[in-house]
Amino acid sequence: MDYFTGVRQKETLEISELSKRAKPGQRVKVNGAVHAIRDMGTVAFVILRKREGLLQGVFEEGAADFELKDIREGAAVELEGILEENEKAPGGIEIRMESIRILSRPADDRMPLAIGKWKLNTSLEAKLTYRSVALRNLRERAKFRIQEGLVRSFRDFLYGQGFTEIHTPKIGAKGAEGGANIFKLDYFHRPAVLAQSPQFYKQMMVGVFDRVFETAPVFRAEKHNTKRHLNEYTSLDFEMGFIDGFEDIMAMETGYLKYAMEMLGKFYDKELGLLNISLPEVSRIPAVKFCEIKEKVSEKYGHQMRNPFDLEPEEEVLIGRYAKEEWGSDFVFVTHYPSKKRPFYAMDDPEDSRFTLSFDLLFRGMEVTTGGQRIHDYGMLTEKLAARGMSEEGMEDYLDTFKYGMPPHGGLGIGLERLTMRLAGEDNVRETTLFPRDLSRLAP
Amino acid sequence: MDYFTGVRQKETLEISELSKRAKPGQRVKVNGAVHAIRDMGTVAFVILRKREGLLQGVFEEGAADFELKDIREGAAVELEGILEENEKAPGGIEIRMESIRILSRPADDRMPLAIGKWKLNTSLEAKLTYRSVALRNLRERAKFRIQEGLVRSFRDFLYGQGFTEIHTPKIGAKGAEGGANIFKLDYFHRPAVLAQSPQFYKQMMVGVFDRVFETAPVFRAEKHNTKRHLNEYTSLDFEMGFIDGFEDIMAMETGYLKYAMEMLGKFYDKELGLLNISLPEVSRIPAVKFCEIKEKVSEKYGHQMRNPFDLEPEEEVLIGRYAKEEWGSDFVFVTHYPSKKRPFYAMDDPEDSRFTLSFDLLFRGMEVTTGGQRIHDYGMLTEKLAARGMSEEGMEDYLDTFKYGMPPHGGLGIGLERLTMRLAGEDNVRETTLFPRDLSRLAP
Repeated sequence: MDYFTGVRQKETLEISELSKRAKPGQRVKVNGAVHAIRDMGTVAFVILRKREGLLQGVFEEGAADFELKDIREGAAVELEGILEENEKAPGGIEIRMESIRILSRPADDRMPLAIGKWKLNTSLEAKLTYRSVALRNLRERAKFRIQEGLVRSFRDFLYGQGFTEIHTPKIGAKGAEGGANIFKLDYFHRPAVLAQSPQFYKQMMVGVFDRVFETAPVFRAEKHNTKRHLNEYTSLDFEMGFIDGFEDIMAMETGYLKYAMEMLGKFYDKELGLLNISLPEVSRIPAVKFCEIKEKVSEKYGHQMRNPFDLEPEEEVLIGRYAKEEWGSDFVFVTHYPSKKRPFYAMDDPEDSRFTLSFDLLFRGMEVTTGGQRIHDYGMLTEKLAARGMSEEGMEDYLDTFKYGMPPHGGLGIGLERLTMRLAGEDNVRETTLFPRDLSRLAP
Repeated sequence: MDYFTGVRQKETLEISELSKRAKPGQRVKVNGAVHAIRDMGTVAFVILRKREGLLQGVFEEGAADFELKDIREGAAVELEGILEENEKAPGGIEIRMESIRILSRPADDRMPLAIGKWKLNTSLEAKLTYRSVALRNLRERAKFRIQEGLVRSFRDFLYGQGFTEIHTPKIGAKGAEGGANIFKLDYFHRPAVLAQSPQFYKQMMVGVFDRVFETAPVFRAEKHNTKRHLNEYTSLDFEMGFIDGFEDIMAMETGYLKYAMEMLGKFYDKELGLLNISLPEVSRIPAVKFCEIKEKVSEKYGHQMRNPFDLEPEEEVLIGRYAKEEWGSDFVFVTHYPSKKRPFYAMDDPEDSRFTLSFDLLFRGMEVTTGGQRIHDYGMLTEKLAARGMSEEGMEDYLDTFKYGMPPHGGLGIGLERLTMRLAGEDNVRETTLFPRDLSRLAP
């Protein structure tokens, strides 16, 4: 009979353990993937890729009980040697190799991409085709560590604000946002759809938990082939009850962004450094009305407005520029979007019902969040559905929730990949999506 | 120009703030949903449902500037009154109501379920039909707070162990596990499927991040209509590289379970109390071989084995009973499952290739985890595919990852709803699923 009692302590050390648990001159054991081999003749550097970064092994003939040709790039190895300080080595340490154990060998050592280089000098197309290899490049993988920091801080912050995490179904009978951009599937011979957002469910759960959030995939069958659209993405959603106004939601998002930047600065500084990211200022975020900012950018930059009810991508860029120039901010809330471009559940502005108590957050000239106050009154909700000529069919459960009472509430959805993209300074959202799904990509 | 600077401090107090930021005798303001009204004649109790629990308001005619009939169950209200101590009230405090502001009114106050009762005395069928109302019952919602604790501790623990969180696509070209239980959909006129598990992707990412995890929905088109099957559930997955053996994975899971029970005890004690849950002992978890335990339960309980290659549900129950009686454990790892019942990527036991280096974890007689070591060698993997007569079609990206080198690795998947179900002592997994998807349920 074996018993398991918890995580096993290993003899092999991680990079951060090398400085804590070993001293220069000591014999240590480490493992890792052979990231690159640099043969200088009398001496060779074997660079290991480990989860915390790179670690340099130094090979000198005679000092080691194996030959350099025994190792090749892509192999997984365990090596023993003497820990030494060397300020030229990654992290300021290196290991004088004495012996090696090959844990696994690649079947093919003609790597399709030169992942050992500082910058992966290849097309986005190639990076996506050889995704699992491309991401072995340190700067490529660092983007997804930053992404982890953004989603991790979202949850941490909201737990602290009394939110409950929920898991809502992705297969359902009807889409929340309506429209044509819904993936359809066969569910045991019944028509079903993939969730475009957790909207209905998170609202229904406000009546239960008051404040809820979810971090999960959403699916959009949009036929856009742009640098900013994905057909599947990770949505950071929250919804909160007992709000005094939709300003509470923007205030909560500002709180999240402050928390996120702090967490990134504290725990992801290595990755920020690798990617040369300077964190944006979020101590105060300006908010401006949709109609007002449209006029302002049109005046300042001579931009010709084509659509009075929505913002075009070029307009978002100009608004971002305006916010930076006039208010010194990388972020700007654009509020009071026209009612006709918002879904039926958006709360209209009681002072002017052509507009809604809603907002988008733009980050460096691109929308990364949509949010607002929702209608909480059953009568008002069914009237708006009727006024839009929409059927209640398939929405009975959602509507019933309001029949039995709901507090004033609102919430938002943040596109995780877009937020990462703007932060990392990338110009294509696929750069910050692990395995993008778009019109042409269904694999890997 | 408005600026947002972070979360707004509110005048209204939450339950935990009432004791911290106010004193008995003080006038306070709170909000909440009217959970129940208990009219005793001269005095009435208005019970508010708040996210942290129940709060009692006391109504006495003359003392308040409103009438009891102004309020009804299901309304959202904000009330002001004097904070008082009362050991008979929930949480030991109550509020003598003076004034009230109605934030919203229900359209229908004939609630379909008596949610104000301690125990929601109705069928599972009714609870699922009126899901958003049923969950307003305190004990019903508490189960999902416990569920939050389980997933939250999973992530927290793994962050601490050097794992990176990933988000892998749910729409793909091919299922990881194969078989018939795959939902199919149309992806812009191309055939696509919903992910049965993140298996291929998390393995591919071991070569990048070394240790990865994901907490996301998975989809199984299984035609089972049992108390333990769902067609969509939340899977807690991890995968780790540079393992010495599949025992490392069981050790890691034991570490997680210890961490989870600690976190639940610390932050979810109220909910544990509401549900009368006593946390299981996880300081050591026994592990026993598949063939051995089959014999043991057959001997001890006279059980007739029907399937020598798998465990039937009744057998799992007996194994759970055996583990409790013989080893005093609610958990038991069953190891070395027959190769023919495990997927092609499972690592066979080099000592006896009829079996695999894999395991299930049973919790109180039900499987809640499947895991094991995977094949990391490209040649071995393609040979096993061939030996099973499987095609490599659609798996090229997965297989290529191995071609360019992968460390020895393994991982597991935990069914979140099942884990919650066993912990909460429920006998149907739908009880611990927010919005279950099964053969008959596609809504709400």
